[in-house]
Amino acid sequence: MNRKKAIGKRSVVFDCPPVIIGAGSVVGEKEGEGAFGRYFDMVETDPLFGAQTWEEAESRMQQMATQIALRKAGLEPKEVRYLVAGDLLGQLIATSFGIMNFNIPMFGVYGACSTMGESLAIGSMLVDGGYADYVVALTSSHFASAEKQFRYPLAYGSQRPYSATWTVTGSGAVVLASAEAKWKRKEIGYVEVAGITTGIITDYGIKDSMNMGACMAPAACDVILNNFKDLGVGPDYYDRIVTGDLGTIGQRILIDMLRGYGYEIENRYFDCGTKIYYNEEQDTNAGGSGCGCSAITLCGYILQRMRKNQWKRVLFVPTGALLSTVSFNEGNSIPGIAHGVMLEAVSGSHMEVK
Amino acid sequence: MNRKKAIGKRSVVFDCPPVIIGAGSVVGEKEGEGAFGRYFDMVETDPLFGAQTWEEAESRMQQMATQIALRKAGLEPKEVRYLVAGDLLGQLIATSFGIMNFNIPMFGVYGACSTMGESLAIGSMLVDGGYADYVVALTSSHFASAEKQFRYPLAYGSQRPYSATWTVTGSGAVVLASAEAKWKRKEIGYVEVAGITTGIITDYGIKDSMNMGACMAPAACDVILNNFKDLGVGPDYYDRIVTGDLGTIGQRILIDMLRGYGYEIENRYFDCGTKIYYNEEQDTNAGGSGCGCSAITLCGYILQRMRKNQWKRVLFVPTGALLSTVSFNEGNSIPGIAHGVMLEAVSGSHMEVK
Repeated sequence: MNRKKAIGKRSVVFDCPPVIIGAGSVVGEKEGEGAFGRYFDMVETDPLFGAQTWEEAESRMQQMATQIALRKAGLEPKEVRYLVAGDLLGQLIATSFGIMNFNIPMFGVYGACSTMGESLAIGSMLVDGGYADYVVALTSSHFASAEKQFRYPLAYGSQRPYSATWTVTGSGAVVLASAEAKWKRKEIGYVEVAGITTGIITDYGIKDSMNMGACMAPAACDVILNNFKDLGVGPDYYDRIVTGDLGTIGQRILIDMLRGYGYEIENRYFDCGTKIYYNEEQDTNAGGSGCGCSAITLCGYILQRMRKNQWKRVLFVPTGALLSTVSFNEGNSIPGIAHGVMLEAVSGSHMEVK
Repeated sequence: MNRKKAIGKRSVVFDCPPVIIGAGSVVGEKEGEGAFGRYFDMVETDPLFGAQTWEEAESRMQQMATQIALRKAGLEPKEVRYLVAGDLLGQLIATSFGIMNFNIPMFGVYGACSTMGESLAIGSMLVDGGYADYVVALTSSHFASAEKQFRYPLAYGSQRPYSATWTVTGSGAVVLASAEAKWKRKEIGYVEVAGITTGIITDYGIKDSMNMGACMAPAACDVILNNFKDLGVGPDYYDRIVTGDLGTIGQRILIDMLRGYGYEIENRYFDCGTKIYYNEEQDTNAGGSGCGCSAITLCGYILQRMRKNQWKRVLFVPTGALLSTVSFNEGNSIPGIAHGVMLEAVSGSHMEVK
């Protein structure tokens, strides 16, 4: 094995880090009114996005996010070698119907709400490995299609415990380019994927689908610990450590768990789910969740802060709760998974525009 | 882009082809009584595999197939860098619960019944790219869990049209190793993954979920045509061209479509779905389907024929129908996808046992 690439037990550090040359975020009205509202490319007030069904609405978000990301990258769909994408719905129908018309060779992935981490990880290896000049990594979630899939009909107006999260309506798409590919630097700086740390499935036996933060926190902890160990670094290596959608309860568990292992992350840590809404005013209880939560926070907020060199290194750790209504109704626990992506901002000066 | 690797628009030919050093197939009784019965590693007569639910039964199959493949490869789970796996069920629960105890970093994938092609493709790039010494590619399907997910309760005894297929109960696992990794050659010859051709989503507007062969045939045709084009070869380059689960109707469509493009494949072609059962006697109508169909045919029948040098080159094209009960009930069409994997048998003589 090329030891330059595979580091330790779980991590990869890229020889030729793939560059993020375009990102698109499309969100619903509630997300537009949230804390990151002004960072998103498009806020749509029609929850159906002009479609007939919630699933089709989610498909349209994926399509728009991809179009925006491609436009920013200055690419046509036919120039993209692979699309790595997935969503929360059974058999990934939001993705299948959303990206069909691009005619891009496609790898469907499922990592629950950690999907943006998984698609970035696989996409980055395909670029760094020399299999592609350009790859799109993409995911989405929609409040209404997720409620329909996993919970109750919206019209029931079910009450939600304080530990429950609100599924984010949003889609984020990222265009990854090889360092040698022809791309134009349009920003002050750019962001590259320096490496990844891949998660295992962790199961602490928690069965409460209204407290998914607690199910996912151990998975996030495991990925962060292994990242530190594999790279021989500590929290201070990163300007920010960002988890996907642990919410207010899950993030407290994560901070406590890492403290137990001797790491203090609180001064450089935030959770996309906890921050994305004004939880009190927007009535979102423990915060946001869903594949879209970390995806739009990345494509909107995080990448903009990094491009402006406000943060140099970010460890981005989307988290997923692996459940279905079938496994839940059969009394199974809810295992978690997380995928770590090491993002690094490069100041534009030493990069030639080709 | 390293042009040695990325060939044409859709294909990759590997510099250092990953080697299949172990494969495991676990099947149900009906599959054991089918045409490939004697090639499978394990035939279980209890359809529940000792579990309480159909989903758990499918999880157990995945676990057993992986254990068999690892044992044949002479590896412990901790030596495997990545597991690339998926299944047909919503949110991939058969996989999540099946492989959890291995503690292997995991990428969940969904390509409907084409999943074995997708997991082999991604797994091979991870090995050839230098990210892993050993990767497990894995998938499964179970007749009863699939009927529960997609169709009617078994107790209804629903009638099935002649165009319907029978979901295969089976799981296939493959261990891929880098050419430089330490592995022992135990067979007369061994099989490597020479390259891949990745599919796009094709949609001919077919809406009949009881005729999935017709939905998938255009996807298989597209992958095979692009493979020929990218590599500058024709059907005679391969000893066998094998599709996943088109069934008797889909395979006729595929043969006719390719004939329309000037390619005659019939004398070297078979479809796993059409062959896996004795369709007349076993009452399986158009044949077998499901992720397990092509996976167990590969791990059992195909690899054994190749290791004995009866076939040198095989183009393996698992096919998937992208539908869910939600998309179907909302009146959507059933798009298809296929993933091509180029397998090549190498006679053992010139390979050193390290």
